[in-house]
Amino acid sequence: MIAAGDDLAQIIHTAVIQTGLDWMDDDIVVLAQKVVSKAEGRLVNLNDVVPSPLAIEYGAKTEKDARFIELVLRESNEVLRVRQGTIIVEHRCGFVCANAGIDHSNVHGPWGDEEDWVLLLPVNPDESARKLRDGLHQLTGKKIGVVIIDSHGRAWRMGTVGVAIGIAEVPGLVDLRGTADLFGYHLKVTMVAAADELAAAASLIMGQAAEGTPAVHVRGFPYALRPTDLKELIRPKEMDLFR
Amino acid sequence: MIAAGDDLAQIIHTAVIQTGLDWMDDDIVVLAQKVVSKAEGRLVNLNDVVPSPLAIEYGAKTEKDARFIELVLRESNEVLRVRQGTIIVEHRCGFVCANAGIDHSNVHGPWGDEEDWVLLLPVNPDESARKLRDGLHQLTGKKIGVVIIDSHGRAWRMGTVGVAIGIAEVPGLVDLRGTADLFGYHLKVTMVAAADELAAAASLIMGQAAEGTPAVHVRGFPYALRPTDLKELIRPKEMDLFR
Repeated sequence: MIAAGDDLAQIIHTAVIQTGLDWMDDDIVVLAQKVVSKAEGRLVNLNDVVPSPLAIEYGAKTEKDARFIELVLRESNEVLRVRQGTIIVEHRCGFVCANAGIDHSNVHGPWGDEEDWVLLLPVNPDESARKLRDGLHQLTGKKIGVVIIDSHGRAWRMGTVGVAIGIAEVPGLVDLRGTADLFGYHLKVTMVAAADELAAAASLIMGQAAEGTPAVHVRGFPYALRPTDLKELIRPKEMDLFR
Repeated sequence: MIAAGDDLAQIIHTAVIQTGLDWMDDDIVVLAQKVVSKAEGRLVNLNDVVPSPLAIEYGAKTEKDARFIELVLRESNEVLRVRQGTIIVEHRCGFVCANAGIDHSNVHGPWGDEEDWVLLLPVNPDESARKLRDGLHQLTGKKIGVVIIDSHGRAWRMGTVGVAIGIAEVPGLVDLRGTADLFGYHLKVTMVAAADELAAAASLIMGQAAEGTPAVHVRGFPYALRPTDLKELIRPKEMDLFR
């Protein structure tokens, strides 16, 4: 159980050493958003939230708690869809997701009390990832990549998949090949969302126990680490096929 | 290099045995769509295609070859977006993707000639997956799951990720937990798109050389195998947030 102020780099480093493993350059740590948010003290009690008229309106429309919706609105740049059971937004950090990523399942307050607590995403997940990278580098002397992941739904497909919401050193996009596209007469570029594929793979390993297995130690990632940030993975509005 | 009529189950089985590995119950084979399509003889030469007036119109709009667009239309239930460089459709099989999944990169004709050949998706990828499952079961005596994958773009995010387009025994969706949602007063159900997470993980391993590493042998998938099909992963139209 992670609490506000915990040193995640130290905790992860200790866990890796205790299991008899070591660190190598270009290892990657994939972390569930939940533990990063908890370490950053992003718990909010709904009893401290006063919903705006818009939050009350959307609360009725979605059949969700208006105080919860109020937090969603505060965490968002733009509301994209509001339907029964669903509110989809552009999060402050630019990516599109349901509920602004606010988690209200299995969230406990600082004294173990369950009711009315929710967990916001980290203030700046890229910054959180970079801090962890630096912390792990200090502890290990190795160059280590970090991906912070959450589970997102998709526009056209059922179910959630792990996606990156903050990255350090792990490339968001990788250019797989550049071959002439005979059909459009353009240079064809296939960009694979490498950090998202890794996020999905790690999510599969975290599996049922996101609370129990919130970190995955990755070795053998097939692409070179390099400076990066999540912007690589966010479709610019003018290219967004949804809006 | 796979050609029309090749027995993929036999080829995969031989490759696994030759590398000194064995098969166990609940192993999974993840296959790139390209090799399945080639084995099924889904190559088409554009010189054999006469574009319809609509294909010519969309060809101009997308700046793509009208004969290519004609094949896209034949492979689709519905056209969702047509823009410069982009045509997004509901494929015959129900999932949404660009270009109806038709591949026009690095596709060679039956005699190695490169120009004007494209590769359609398998006629029925679920059926292809089931046939492979049965073929591998006959060869190995083991219960083996199969996932056929392709690379799809996303509405809101850049880059492609591996997703399942045909599945046998590998669950599309897994219900991770059912906890009461205090906020909507609904029972909260988190459905993870397990087959898609595996598809993304395998895609990462296939990496740059989709032609060179078109199959991944998976052991330790965290969820129980069971009868399934791709419909689990396709968002019903009335729940589609895109249309």
